[in-house]
Amino acid sequence: MKTVSHYAQMIETAISALPLDKQPTGLYAPIRYALEAGGKRLRPVLTLSVADAMCGNAACAVNQALGVEMFHNFTLLHDDVMDNADVRRGRPTVHRKYSENTAILSGDAMLTLAGMLVMKDCQDTKLRRVLNLFNKTAVEVYEGQQFDVDFESRNDVTVEEYLEMIRLKTSVLLGCACEMGAIMADADEATCKAFYNYGEKLGLSFQLKDDWLDTYGDPLTFGKEIGGDIANEKKTWLLITAMAEDRSGILDEVLGKNLPLPQKIEKVRVVYDTLDLSDRCRRLEEKYAAEAVEWLQSVKMNEDVRDFFTSLAVNSVKRTK
Amino acid sequence: MKTVSHYAQMIETAISALPLDKQPTGLYAPIRYALEAGGKRLRPVLTLSVADAMCGNAACAVNQALGVEMFHNFTLLHDDVMDNADVRRGRPTVHRKYSENTAILSGDAMLTLAGMLVMKDCQDTKLRRVLNLFNKTAVEVYEGQQFDVDFESRNDVTVEEYLEMIRLKTSVLLGCACEMGAIMADADEATCKAFYNYGEKLGLSFQLKDDWLDTYGDPLTFGKEIGGDIANEKKTWLLITAMAEDRSGILDEVLGKNLPLPQKIEKVRVVYDTLDLSDRCRRLEEKYAAEAVEWLQSVKMNEDVRDFFTSLAVNSVKRTK
Repeated sequence: MKTVSHYAQMIETAISALPLDKQPTGLYAPIRYALEAGGKRLRPVLTLSVADAMCGNAACAVNQALGVEMFHNFTLLHDDVMDNADVRRGRPTVHRKYSENTAILSGDAMLTLAGMLVMKDCQDTKLRRVLNLFNKTAVEVYEGQQFDVDFESRNDVTVEEYLEMIRLKTSVLLGCACEMGAIMADADEATCKAFYNYGEKLGLSFQLKDDWLDTYGDPLTFGKEIGGDIANEKKTWLLITAMAEDRSGILDEVLGKNLPLPQKIEKVRVVYDTLDLSDRCRRLEEKYAAEAVEWLQSVKMNEDVRDFFTSLAVNSVKRTK
Repeated sequence: MKTVSHYAQMIETAISALPLDKQPTGLYAPIRYALEAGGKRLRPVLTLSVADAMCGNAACAVNQALGVEMFHNFTLLHDDVMDNADVRRGRPTVHRKYSENTAILSGDAMLTLAGMLVMKDCQDTKLRRVLNLFNKTAVEVYEGQQFDVDFESRNDVTVEEYLEMIRLKTSVLLGCACEMGAIMADADEATCKAFYNYGEKLGLSFQLKDDWLDTYGDPLTFGKEIGGDIANEKKTWLLITAMAEDRSGILDEVLGKNLPLPQKIEKVRVVYDTLDLSDRCRRLEEKYAAEAVEWLQSVKMNEDVRDFFTSLAVNSVKRTK
């Protein structure tokens, strides 16, 4: 196995080689701008590393990895419009740099281009399978996004509903990224499903850590303002659990009220601390990371390969940004 | 051959049967709202009638027809957001009835669902061909939309550029709709291409008539206010030709100026009339309709079948709404 950064570099190279210097530039230039913003490249790294692990040739899945990354970035363009977000990865979002209409139309093109990439160099015998996986995942991501929107106007969201929402909105795409690599490497059905489940559980762990970092991250390494989710009263695992368990009455005094943000964040954190939510959230992240690794136990692989996927799960929990 | 309204009714029935009564309703209900607004159903009628003409079984292409109609309606949802349009087919647009975010997200889902429909009941041997046609067409539609946007801030758009823009934005989808029906009916390659070209030329005729009706339609039958394009200084064939040929100086006095709309519309129409643009536009519509029919000359078909496709082209020019 190669390193994570080796696979990430393969993706950067493949992104640079995409034929996006075309007319009309108003459509294509924003796609390059969005794709070249960097990021962890977690999803395509999963596709490439699973393919490499299963057939020793990561390159056999490079277009599928690109397709998954293109799809992910399409969702970011449209989500940023919907959330009215100004900044993404330290740069202006596409709708701020260009226009809202650009973010919508270039995003649409990215969705179609993603589907085209997923088909590229995919043998006819696998085509339907790969596309069914891709399309099913895409629909689930939209459903997750809609549930997320719905949750914002509800005060009775349960932890189970929240976990199902992040499974749809985030995790299934990681599962898809993994299974795509396995399919392209001609892995058997059980192995494909095991990798899907690995990715899905990894995704849950990953999203919970994202939420945790937004409240408990180190401002120096996190790269974003701490407490944004609390400020926006975003229904994360932390807030939903606190709303269900808080007996202090503090949340009622704070949520929906016009408090200065630092005070609001501080008060909500006191509730979280009283309920031990930081540690409980981390234990949940660890549980899902462990479940991810467990799914691979039935899959035959060398120790260094197993170590690679175990490390990915462990690092998802340990990361500080 | 059956009648146009027979094929249109097949589509209405198939749309009603789509499984859209699902959670989250915030995602799926707007899709049904958009699809059940009616309209001419021109694109799926083309798919079904071509399939019927080529193999006697329109039903073999019903999912592909639905996919093309779903795609078309997805573009309407997003275009209406971009144009800030209030009304579509006499009802509030999706972003007015629900929200802009709904129009974006439900539109995204429609694009993915369109791709899934196109795959449905399509034999593996044709899958790549059908999807390549669908994806290539989709990308061209986005390019056409972007050129349309670009043209609004340019004063030197040529008639050739305009015709290429409407070819991309409108015509290629009619070509795709036709070819999709031919492929599903196992027509040979030359026949598939002939039907594509028929649809493409029909689309040019159709779009020019749309533009003509916006200026010269009968307010009683047209269903929309007459003169909207002039009021918005939309770069149609009429306006672009007038801008290139007007020696009266009237356009310079009117365009970009803050005139009362009835006066603006009247003055621009005087320019159009001086240049005989109404008749010249209709002759161009007729030219493309004739070219459409010509493309079918090499295709073997019964006289009633040929009459059907000839009538479609003739009626595209004759229609009053």
